[in-house]
Amino acid sequence: MRGAMRRKEEIKRPEGKLGILIPGMGGAVSTTFLAGVQTIRQSLALPVGSLTQMGTIRLGKRFEYRIPLIKELVPLADLDDLIFAGWDVFPDNCRQAALQCKVLNQDHVEAVGSFLEGLVPWPAVFNQTFVKNLDGPNVKPQASHLELVDAIKADIEAFRRENAISRCVMIWCGSTEAYLKPSAVHATLSNFEAGLKDNDPNISPSMLYAYAALTSGIPYINGAPNLTVDIAAMEELADDCQVAIAGKDFKTGQTLMKTILAPGLKARMLGLSGWYSTNILGNRDGMVLDDKDSFKTKEESKLSVLDTILQPQVYPELYREFFHKVVINYYPPRGDNKEGWDCIDIFGWLGYPMQIKVNFLCRDSILAAPLVLDLVLFADLAQRAAMSGIQEWLSFYFKSPQCAANLYPEHDLFIQSIKLKNTLRYLMGEEQITHLGLDYYYDL
Amino acid sequence: MRGAMRRKEEIKRPEGKLGILIPGMGGAVSTTFLAGVQTIRQSLALPVGSLTQMGTIRLGKRFEYRIPLIKELVPLADLDDLIFAGWDVFPDNCRQAALQCKVLNQDHVEAVGSFLEGLVPWPAVFNQTFVKNLDGPNVKPQASHLELVDAIKADIEAFRRENAISRCVMIWCGSTEAYLKPSAVHATLSNFEAGLKDNDPNISPSMLYAYAALTSGIPYINGAPNLTVDIAAMEELADDCQVAIAGKDFKTGQTLMKTILAPGLKARMLGLSGWYSTNILGNRDGMVLDDKDSFKTKEESKLSVLDTILQPQVYPELYREFFHKVVINYYPPRGDNKEGWDCIDIFGWLGYPMQIKVNFLCRDSILAAPLVLDLVLFADLAQRAAMSGIQEWLSFYFKSPQCAANLYPEHDLFIQSIKLKNTLRYLMGEEQITHLGLDYYYDL
Amino acid sequence: MRGAMRRKEEIKRPEGKLGILIPGMGGAVSTTFLAGVQTIRQSLALPVGSLTQMGTIRLGKRFEYRIPLIKELVPLADLDDLIFAGWDVFPDNCRQAALQCKVLNQDHVEAVGSFLEGLVPWPAVFNQTFVKNLDGPNVKPQASHLELVDAIKADIEAFRRENAISRCVMIWCGSTEAYLKPSAVHATLSNFEAGLKDNDPNISPSMLYAYAALTSGIPYINGAPNLTVDIAAMEELADDCQVAIAGKDFKTGQTLMKTILAPGLKARMLGLSGWYSTNILGNRDGMVLDDKDSFKTKEESKLSVLDTILQPQVYPELYREFFHKVVINYYPPRGDNKEGWDCIDIFGWLGYPMQIKVNFLCRDSILAAPLVLDLVLFADLAQRAAMSGIQEWLSFYFKSPQCAANLYPEHDLFIQSIKLKNTLRYLMGEEQITHLGLDYYYDL
Amino acid sequence: MRGAMRRKEEIKRPEGKLGILIPGMGGAVSTTFLAGVQTIRQSLALPVGSLTQMGTIRLGKRFEYRIPLIKELVPLADLDDLIFAGWDVFPDNCRQAALQCKVLNQDHVEAVGSFLEGLVPWPAVFNQTFVKNLDGPNVKPQASHLELVDAIKADIEAFRRENAISRCVMIWCGSTEAYLKPSAVHATLSNFEAGLKDNDPNISPSMLYAYAALTSGIPYINGAPNLTVDIAAMEELADDCQVAIAGKDFKTGQTLMKTILAPGLKARMLGLSGWYSTNILGNRDGMVLDDKDSFKTKEESKLSVLDTILQPQVYPELYREFFHKVVINYYPPRGDNKEGWDCIDIFGWLGYPMQIKVNFLCRDSILAAPLVLDLVLFADLAQRAAMSGIQEWLSFYFKSPQCAANLYPEHDLFIQSIKLKNTLRYLMGEEQITHLGLDYYYDL
Repeated sequence: MRGAMRRKEEIKRPEGKLGILIPGMGGAVSTTFLAGVQTIRQSLALPVGSLTQMGTIRLGKRFEYRIPLIKELVPLADLDDLIFAGWDVFPDNCRQAALQCKVLNQDHVEAVGSFLEGLVPWPAVFNQTFVKNLDGPNVKPQASHLELVDAIKADIEAFRRENAISRCVMIWCGSTEAYLKPSAVHATLSNFEAGLKDNDPNISPSMLYAYAALTSGIPYINGAPNLTVDIAAMEELADDCQVAIAGKDFKTGQTLMKTILAPGLKARMLGLSGWYSTNILGNRDGMVLDDKDSFKTKEESKLSVLDTILQPQVYPELYREFFHKVVINYYPPRGDNKEGWDCIDIFGWLGYPMQIKVNFLCRDSILAAPLVLDLVLFADLAQRAAMSGIQEWLSFYFKSPQCAANLYPEHDLFIQSIKLKNTLRYLMGEEQITHLGLDYYYDL
Repeated sequence: MRGAMRRKEEIKRPEGKLGILIPGMGGAVSTTFLAGVQTIRQSLALPVGSLTQMGTIRLGKRFEYRIPLIKELVPLADLDDLIFAGWDVFPDNCRQAALQCKVLNQDHVEAVGSFLEGLVPWPAVFNQTFVKNLDGPNVKPQASHLELVDAIKADIEAFRRENAISRCVMIWCGSTEAYLKPSAVHATLSNFEAGLKDNDPNISPSMLYAYAALTSGIPYINGAPNLTVDIAAMEELADDCQVAIAGKDFKTGQTLMKTILAPGLKARMLGLSGWYSTNILGNRDGMVLDDKDSFKTKEESKLSVLDTILQPQVYPELYREFFHKVVINYYPPRGDNKEGWDCIDIFGWLGYPMQIKVNFLCRDSILAAPLVLDLVLFADLAQRAAMSGIQEWLSFYFKSPQCAANLYPEHDLFIQSIKLKNTLRYLMGEEQITHLGLDYYYDL
Repeated sequence: MRGAMRRKEEIKRPEGKLGILIPGMGGAVSTTFLAGVQTIRQSLALPVGSLTQMGTIRLGKRFEYRIPLIKELVPLADLDDLIFAGWDVFPDNCRQAALQCKVLNQDHVEAVGSFLEGLVPWPAVFNQTFVKNLDGPNVKPQASHLELVDAIKADIEAFRRENAISRCVMIWCGSTEAYLKPSAVHATLSNFEAGLKDNDPNISPSMLYAYAALTSGIPYINGAPNLTVDIAAMEELADDCQVAIAGKDFKTGQTLMKTILAPGLKARMLGLSGWYSTNILGNRDGMVLDDKDSFKTKEESKLSVLDTILQPQVYPELYREFFHKVVINYYPPRGDNKEGWDCIDIFGWLGYPMQIKVNFLCRDSILAAPLVLDLVLFADLAQRAAMSGIQEWLSFYFKSPQCAANLYPEHDLFIQSIKLKNTLRYLMGEEQITHLGLDYYYDL
Repeated sequence: MRGAMRRKEEIKRPEGKLGILIPGMGGAVSTTFLAGVQTIRQSLALPVGSLTQMGTIRLGKRFEYRIPLIKELVPLADLDDLIFAGWDVFPDNCRQAALQCKVLNQDHVEAVGSFLEGLVPWPAVFNQTFVKNLDGPNVKPQASHLELVDAIKADIEAFRRENAISRCVMIWCGSTEAYLKPSAVHATLSNFEAGLKDNDPNISPSMLYAYAALTSGIPYINGAPNLTVDIAAMEELADDCQVAIAGKDFKTGQTLMKTILAPGLKARMLGLSGWYSTNILGNRDGMVLDDKDSFKTKEESKLSVLDTILQPQVYPELYREFFHKVVINYYPPRGDNKEGWDCIDIFGWLGYPMQIKVNFLCRDSILAAPLVLDLVLFADLAQRAAMSGIQEWLSFYFKSPQCAANLYPEHDLFIQSIKLKNTLRYLMGEEQITHLGLDYYYDL
C-alpha cells in the first residue's frame, strides 16, 4: 500500500504539544533521556550526540559553505513542547529511578529533581516468561491480551486529554524480551488479531503496546531487539493506520563501533578472518541478558551486522569464512558503564595477517539517550509528512534496521548517515549530495 | 585551464605495455608491491586490499543485485601488461632488497626470486640535506638540477624504447624528505624553472623526478608527505602538459584508522576532548622519521586529518578544543610491523566522558602495496580519459589529499570512497548512487 | 609417613638413561617439548623459559656475586640422557603431530624431523565420557580398569628393557578431563583399589596412568587440572611406594599473569573490586574446553588462584568482595596462540578506583614446554634425593599447586620462586636467602 | 661509620607529636596525602595502599595463622599525633590547592576543608634554572645558599616550638629538578659545605632543604628523582648527624607495573626483546616534565629499573639486547589521571616471540599518598631504632632505591617486600621467613 509523501510546504507544522510515551520509563536509558531533556531545556548542558539538536547539513556546492543546522532546515517539534509519560514494572518516580541507575551524577539528577519527581510510571504490562531475570510490583492486573491493550489505550487517552496533547510518539525503552521466532500468528494482521483474542503465547507484552499505539494513530519506535513491529502483521497494521514504525534495537556501544570499523575495512578490501567481541556490563540490562533466552534475542541482533555490511556473497575470498563470536558478561563493578573489547583479525596484500584491538569504555545510556530524542522528533516529522510504514531512512539509529521485504537492511553507519541526510534534503527540495565533484575540475 | 574529460566509449583502450617508474624502488613498500604483483600474476596469492582487482561496484537499484567487479566496469590495464623500473640509493636488486626488508616471508620472495632479481635500480638523485638518517652509494654523479632532470629523462627514454612501452606512470615510494615551506620558487612555473637553472636549494630531489615525469607526459603520484607536486608551479605544469597528478602520502596504519573512526564519531555528534596517537615502528621509515625534520613533514600530514574531518568551525562545541598529539618512535623489535596505540577521549549526552583505545598491529607495506597498484592503474585510466591535473577523486588513497585551491580536502574515508565510486559510475555513464531509496516505499 | 630426605653428597648421581613417559604425546605441548629438546641438543636454539637449563641461583652475600647456573649447583640429568615414549589417541608419529599442531614453524619441525618420526605413540587409555569433544582411533582394546593398568605397565616395562633405562618420570600432557568431585573411592588407597576391581566410573583414565606409574616406582607429574594424584588415595600410594608426585595444571598464559600481578597489587595493599578474564584460543585445547564439563575442571583451577593469593579473610576490606569472572572461548583464527584480555578494577587511597587492562598475546605450548623439561628433571632429582610424596617446592609450575592437607597452597609466583630456590640451596647445604641485608649497614 | 641498631624493647616509644615537613606542600601528591590523613582520622575512608595502616605480617609457621597487623607488631606513631607543615612556591592554602589539583572529588576536599585551610605553606626556596616550566610568587627573598638554609631552619624551629613537636621527618613532594650529574661538590661533605659558602650552582634547592633537615637531626625522604641526598656528601652528613635518609622517586604508575612484571618474566626465564612505555598525563607534573632537562632526570630514574631487575650480565642470552624506550607526554584531557601503555616483546622456548600490552588507567597521587604516609612513619621508626644513614629496607617505595656504594639496588618489588618485612621481623625478634617449608614434609 504505497502512498505519496508530502514535501516541503505540504508538511504539517509541529504545532501544539507532542506527547512522548515510554514503556520502560524507569530504566537507565529513559531516565537519562528525560533528565537530559530537562537539563538541556534549562540550558545547563548540551544535547551532545543528537543530530536533531546539534547536527548540520551541507547544502549545494562545496565552496558555498551553506551548512545550516538540521533543525533549521526541517520543521521539528521544539524541546519545550515535549510532554512525557510512560509505564514501568517498578513504581518509583523518575527521580528515584534515575538516582538508582547511577548513570548521571547525583548533582545532575537533583538539578532537575522536581521535574523528574512529577514523572510517575503507570502500571506496566508484564509477563515474566519474556524477561526471566526481572520482576516488579507495578503491573496491570488485567489478564487477557485484549483487556491489556484496552488498559494501555485508556492510559494514553487520559494523558492526551489531561495535557491537551496534539500528537504522540511511543518509544520502547524497556528490557530485551526472550527470543521469539516469527510464527503464523505474526504473519498477517488477521492472524494476529485472532491471536489477541485467543491470548496466543507468541504475542509478547511489547506487541500489546505497539498494537495499542498503532491503532491509536501513534508511531511506534522499537529500541530493543524484540520482534514487536518487525513482523508482517504489524507492517500491515501500520499501513492500514497510516502510522510510522521504526526499529529495531538502539545502536550503541560495541555494535556502533562495528558499524564504523567494518565499512572501513571493506572500503579498503581488507579481508577478515575473525572478530571476537566481549562486553562487560553491570546494570539491569546486564542482569537481564544473563538469562539465555534474552541473550539469544540480543545475539541475533548483534551477529547479523557483519554479514550484511561485509557481503560475503559478493566478496567470498575476503569475507566468507570469518569467525564471529559475541560474548556478553554481567560484571557488576562496571555499573552502567558498558565496556567492550574487540579483537579483530584481518588480512591484507597476499593474505598477510594483521590485528586490531578496540577497548571501548562507554556509557550505554549516555549513547542511547540522544537517539531517543532524535527518533521521537524524526518519527513525528515522518508522521506530519505522511510517511507511514517502515522508516528505513532511520536505519542510522538501529542495530537491526527494519526494511521492506524485497530489500536488505543497510548496516553501514556511513551509508545510513547519507541516506538520512539525503532524505532530509529531498523532503525540503534540496539537491542530493553525491560527492562526485568532477564539475569543480572539468567542463562536464 | 579546464578541459573536457572523456567518457565511456571515448576513453582510450589500455593497449600495449604500461611502464611503472618507481623512485625508491628498493624500499619496503615498493618491493612488497613488486613481489606481490608477480605472485598474483602467477596465481599464488590474492591482491587483497586492491579495489581495482577485487572491488565491486553497485549499479542501479538495490533489488537488482547488479554488482560487477570494478575492473569489469572500467577499462584498466591488465596486470600482465605492467613493466617495472626505478631508482634507489642502494644498488641491490629487488630480490636482495625484499629479503632485507623482511616484510614478506622468505618463501614468498623466493617464489618470485628470479623476477625480482631482474629488477635493478638505476642510480638515484639524492641529497642528504633532505633525508638525514639515510645514505647510500647508488647516486647519480651529476651536480646541477638540470643535469639531474636530464639524467632521469634519459633513464625513462631508454626504458620506454627497450621495452616497447606505450604509456608510463611514475609513483614515489621513497623516503619522507625534510619539511619544506612552500616559498616563492614553488609559486609559479616560471619561478620554478628559474630555480632549476639556479640550483635553488628549495627544490628537493622528489621535485626533480616529478618535473622529469610531467615534461615527459607521464602522470606523477606522490606516496610520501613531501611537497613535490602539491605546489602551484607543478599544478600549472600538469595542466600545461595535460598530465594527471595525485597525492600525497599513502593512507595506511594509524591515519587510515583515524579516517575511519573520526567520521563515525562525527556522524553520531559525539564530542572529542583529546586524541593521543603513538606509533612504534622499526624499519627504514622509522629510522628516517627519527630525524626531526623528516618527522615534521610527516606530522603535518598526520595532524590536519582530524581538523578537516571534524570541522571545528561548524561544530565548535564538539570539536574546537580537542587536544591532538601524534608521536612516532623508532622501536627496532617491531621491524616492518608498525604498531599504533590510540587513546581517544570523547564525550556524549550532557558532556559525559567515554574512552576508546585502539591498538593496531599492522604491517605498513602490506597496507601500502595495494594502494600503489590501484593508483598506477587509476592514474593511467585518468590519463586515457583526458583527466589531467589534480585527481581529487583519488583522495581515498592519501593522508593529505590534494584538491583545487578554492576547495577543502576530503579526509573522510567514506566520502572519499563514494567520491571514487561515483566518479567511476559517471565515467561509464551509470546513475549516481545517493542512497536515498524513498522510491522503494513511496510514489515520489 | 615422614622420611628423611638426602642432602648434597647423599643424593644419588643421575647416572644412565632417564625415560620420559608422556600420556598425550601427540598434543601441542608434548610435541613442542620433544621437538624443542632435540633442537636444543643440536644447539640450534636456546631452552628459553627453562630454569634448569638457563636459570642461575644467587649464593652467599650480595657483594660476592656468586651466581652459578642452577644445573651447576644441583645434580640434574643431562639432556643427552633423556629417552622419550608415550601414548596418544591419534596414531600419528610426532613429526606428523607437530606439523598438525602448527605451534612450531615447519622448518623447525623438519630440522629434527627424523628424531620426531621415531616417536610413535602407544595406543592410549581413553574414555570419551571424560573428554567429550575428542575422539581418536589409537586406543587400547582392554575394557576393565585392571587390564588397562596392566597394559600400561607392560608398555613401560618393554620400554625400560629395550632402552636400558635406569630411571623414569611420567608427565601428563593430555587433555583436560571432565570435572570430578573427590568421592569415597578417592578417599583411601583401599577404596581406590576396590574401585579398580569394580571398574568404578569415578576412576578416570589419568588415574589409571598414575596408578601404573606409582606402582612401578615412577614419579607422576600432572600437567592438567584433572584430579589424578590430587586425592588422598594417591598420596597414600605415593608414600607407600616412596615416589614423588606433583601437580596440578601447568601455569601458563593468563593464570601465570595473574600470579604475577595479584601479588604485586597485594604487596602494595591496593584493593580489588573486579577481575574479568577472557581467553581466546583455537587449538585442540580450545575445542576440548568448549565442552562444559571440561571447562568446569579448568575453571575451578583458574578461579581459586586469586582467593589464595589475596587472602580475603586477612584483608576483608580490600579483597572480600571482588567479582571474579573467567571466560574461555574457542576462536579458531587464533590457532595455538592463546590470547588473554584481563580487565582489572582496583582501588587505592580513600577508595579511588583505577583500572588495569592486560592483553597477552601468548603461545600456550611455547610457555608450557620448558615447564615439562624442568618438571621431569626436578622430579628425577627429588626421587634421587629420597623426597617422596607431594613436591610442594615445585608449586612454581602449577595453577593449582598440591600441598599437605594441613596447609594452604602458595599461588604467589614470587613466593613459589623463593621456595624453589631456597629448597635447592638447602639441598646443597647453602645458606637460605632472606633478603634481610641489615648486616651490610649495621653491626648486628 | 657503622653503628648498632636497637631492637625490640630498646626501640624508643613514639611518644609526643611527630612533625611532618613537606617541601612542595601544595602539589597534588601532598594535598592528596594531607586530605587523606584527615579523612582517615575522621573514619570517613580507608587508608588503602598503606602497609603501615592496613598491612599484615605473617609470623612463625604456616599452620599457625599468626598474622598481626604491621602496626600491631612494630611501634609506629599514631595518625592522631601527626602535625603538618611545609613550603610551596604558590601561597594557596591546602584547601585551595587540593581543589585546584582535582585529584579528589570536591566533596572529599570539603569534608576536611577547615583542616586543609589551616595548612598554609611557608615561602619556598626556588630557582627556576632547576624547574623551567614552573613559576610562583611565594618564594624566599634570600639569595645566598647559607641564608636560605638558615631561613628553612628558622621555619622548622618555629614550627617545633609552637606545636610542641617531639620529633620530625621531612619528605620532598615537590617537582622534579633538572638533571644534575654528580660532581666534585657532591663528593665529600667538606666540598659540599665549601660549595654552600660559594653559592655553587650545582647545589639545587632540594639539597638546601635536605641540608637543613639533616643538620637539625631530621630524617629526609626524597620522593622525586632529584639527586639531593643520593650523593656521597649527604651520606656522610647523615652518618655524622645519625639521621636516616631514604630515596629516591616514589614508585607509582608505570614503574610500579614494571617492577611487578619484570620479576615475573625473569622468574620464568622468558627473554625480552623490547619494552616500549608511553605515559600520558595532564597535571603540573606533566607540564614540568615537558621540559627536556626535567624529563632527563625522570628518564634516568625510569630506565635503570629493567637493567637492574633483569641482570643482563647474568643472563646475556635473555636480556642483553632488549630495546627499552620510555616516553612521557603532556596530555591535558587526562588531568591527574596518569595513563600508561606498555608494549612488551618477550620470547620463549626456542626463541618464539610473544607480546604483552598493559594499559594502566591510574591516578598518580592516589598511588603516591599512602607511600608518603608509610615513609614518614617508617623513617620515624628507623630514627627511634637508631638506624641512621641509608634505609635500604625502604627500597619498596622507590623507583631508584638508594643503597650502599658496594651494593646494587634491589628493584624487584617482591624482593623489596620480603626485605621490608624481614627487617620488621628482625627488629621485633621474630624468625626470618624463607618459604623453605620442607619441614612440613620431612624430618630435616
